[in-house]
Amino acid sequence: MLAASAIVLAACGNQNKMSSNSGSTKTELTGTNSNNNYQSVIQDGHYQTSKSAGVNQQQTSNQFNLEGFQHGLLDISKKEFSPNKYVFQEGQQISTEQTYNWLGRKTKQNPEGLNPDQPDKKIVPEYLQQIDEQDFLQQNGGKLQLKGMTIGLGLNSVYYYTKEKYGAQYTKNLSDDEIEAKGKEMANEVLKRMRQRAATKDIPIVIALYKAAPDDSLVGGNFFAYSVNRGGATSVSSWNKVNQRNYVFPTAGNEKVPNANDEAAFEQFKNKAQSYFPNLSGVTAQAQYTDGTLTGMHVNIVTQFYSYTEINSFTQYLQTAAQKYLPHNVPIEITVGSTNGVQSYLNRGQDEKKFTAHVFNNY
Amino acid sequence: MLAASAIVLAACGNQNKMSSNSGSTKTELTGTNSNNNYQSVIQDGHYQTSKSAGVNQQQTSNQFNLEGFQHGLLDISKKEFSPNKYVFQEGQQISTEQTYNWLGRKTKQNPEGLNPDQPDKKIVPEYLQQIDEQDFLQQNGGKLQLKGMTIGLGLNSVYYYTKEKYGAQYTKNLSDDEIEAKGKEMANEVLKRMRQRAATKDIPIVIALYKAAPDDSLVGGNFFAYSVNRGGATSVSSWNKVNQRNYVFPTAGNEKVPNANDEAAFEQFKNKAQSYFPNLSGVTAQAQYTDGTLTGMHVNIVTQFYSYTEINSFTQYLQTAAQKYLPHNVPIEITVGSTNGVQSYLNRGQDEKKFTAHVFNNY
Repeated sequence: MLAASAIVLAACGNQNKMSSNSGSTKTELTGTNSNNNYQSVIQDGHYQTSKSAGVNQQQTSNQFNLEGFQHGLLDISKKEFSPNKYVFQEGQQISTEQTYNWLGRKTKQNPEGLNPDQPDKKIVPEYLQQIDEQDFLQQNGGKLQLKGMTIGLGLNSVYYYTKEKYGAQYTKNLSDDEIEAKGKEMANEVLKRMRQRAATKDIPIVIALYKAAPDDSLVGGNFFAYSVNRGGATSVSSWNKVNQRNYVFPTAGNEKVPNANDEAAFEQFKNKAQSYFPNLSGVTAQAQYTDGTLTGMHVNIVTQFYSYTEINSFTQYLQTAAQKYLPHNVPIEITVGSTNGVQSYLNRGQDEKKFTAHVFNNY
Repeated sequence: MLAASAIVLAACGNQNKMSSNSGSTKTELTGTNSNNNYQSVIQDGHYQTSKSAGVNQQQTSNQFNLEGFQHGLLDISKKEFSPNKYVFQEGQQISTEQTYNWLGRKTKQNPEGLNPDQPDKKIVPEYLQQIDEQDFLQQNGGKLQLKGMTIGLGLNSVYYYTKEKYGAQYTKNLSDDEIEAKGKEMANEVLKRMRQRAATKDIPIVIALYKAAPDDSLVGGNFFAYSVNRGGATSVSSWNKVNQRNYVFPTAGNEKVPNANDEAAFEQFKNKAQSYFPNLSGVTAQAQYTDGTLTGMHVNIVTQFYSYTEINSFTQYLQTAAQKYLPHNVPIEITVGSTNGVQSYLNRGQDEKKFTAHVFNNY
């Protein structure tokens, strides 16, 4: 929750009204915010949207990959560019056109393509699926200046293709080794390109690699490596491993989660909820594991029928049941939805002991 | 928020495990809950759903009327049956079949119909649209017993009819005086019927009258009167007026809200939000006035485009803008939605000074 104990950006005295580089532009921040969440930049009252996000939106057919990619990238950024010291801005350096070109295959017409070319009648996978740039600014002599950058490369784990236009869809699974090798190769190329620009020549650039989940997955993919490249460095010298994976509860088939107790706990909660309320059409969860330990869970409950008092009582019941059955000391979010949208939600944050709940209602 | 300071049902020592009337039934409560919110009953692990709610669902074409009716009725119940002293149960006395019959016209086949009969070729409006029963229980010698009841009668403000099957739809506006007179007449009849049953003969019964909004309204109707009938009373002796109305901001045409400053404040907030973010497709609000004073506001913001970082920054910005521009000392709820559903929400409760915010995300 963006609650009481807001942390104010340390360096800025008069943070909500800063003059920027150009004399006529008025730069503001989105306002004080809670611990570990970035403030971001407003130029002349307008938010600077990302130049690459719209492209990713078109290219990515699994919404979870899109969301998990952006959210996970922000988490990696926080390790290097602390929200207490930097202001966030959506990527402004790699243009929309460049994003399209980089995501394309490398051909004569598109020399900037990061995906390999495909000679006639051969099947060569496209590895790169999405690119996201995040900019981090600091105040310098009354001006906000670009002082850091994170670039995420989202890589396919499955390559989807057709042999002819509108033909049947084929799939080719890409091995982890292959994805990692290609991703690291592309990272070097991207870093080299950023160093050829004045604005990004000398700033630290973090590059992170994300393995996208298959299109039919009910949970997004995961970051598996990132590199921190000091100002001026034109090739990646070392990689940090990220050991994070997402699972769906209940698990399908033979899939094994790192800790079976977590799924057993979820099952108990699920049974309790389904026994309580006759109109539930589904109880599922997304579970995130970091280094083999559960680090977050999103429970999604769908009801077929809507009545205010029923949702109200049900939410109250879930508050007790979640506290009792679901794993402790882990941030958990529960949403209750119907065909009319989200009806209520419960939340227990990282360091919170109890769930809070909110029931949505209309007048 | 159903937060920290939970009030525990005063009378119950061992509240989560109470034996009920029948030896084999296990009665539980939904658990401790926050101030001014009812605990409700679970029988053998199952929630007792309302017998009338499903009928209303079918009869009511405006979802806001359904939700506002149930929610508003609960608010009226709280005046007479304090959540600290009573446990809530969905209506169990008026059966589903009876609800159908009562909502029908009074004919030879349906002598219990509360709507008037319609002789051939005459247009006689149906006044009654929905019925909701809420039961209130107290513990007595280790058993939960029915000790109070609230019945809501939802009345049409517009009667919709066709002159032939599948023919064009006609409307007839019903005057406030007409609705009030018919509603009070029906209330007497309903009270009389409840007194003929052993379970409800001697308990206090609150009856409340609701004027439904037209089908195309973007906000629900309002309660305009309620009566408290002591145990045994077979006709209503006095009515309390309820002066509550809901409005949509921005208002349409010549509609006047009780306090123009509230709408001006909303407009400032709306302009700020729309200027900030280029991808907004709408900013509207439902505003509730009680005795001419703003007593609550639900703001609904719809964005066309979804990106996690954008929603995150936008939500942070809204938190500042809402605090600055929207009316103070009034509970306000703001939801930000996209085609993928609710993306974030902000809330400032009755006695809270600041907005809290939550951004939904997936793994």
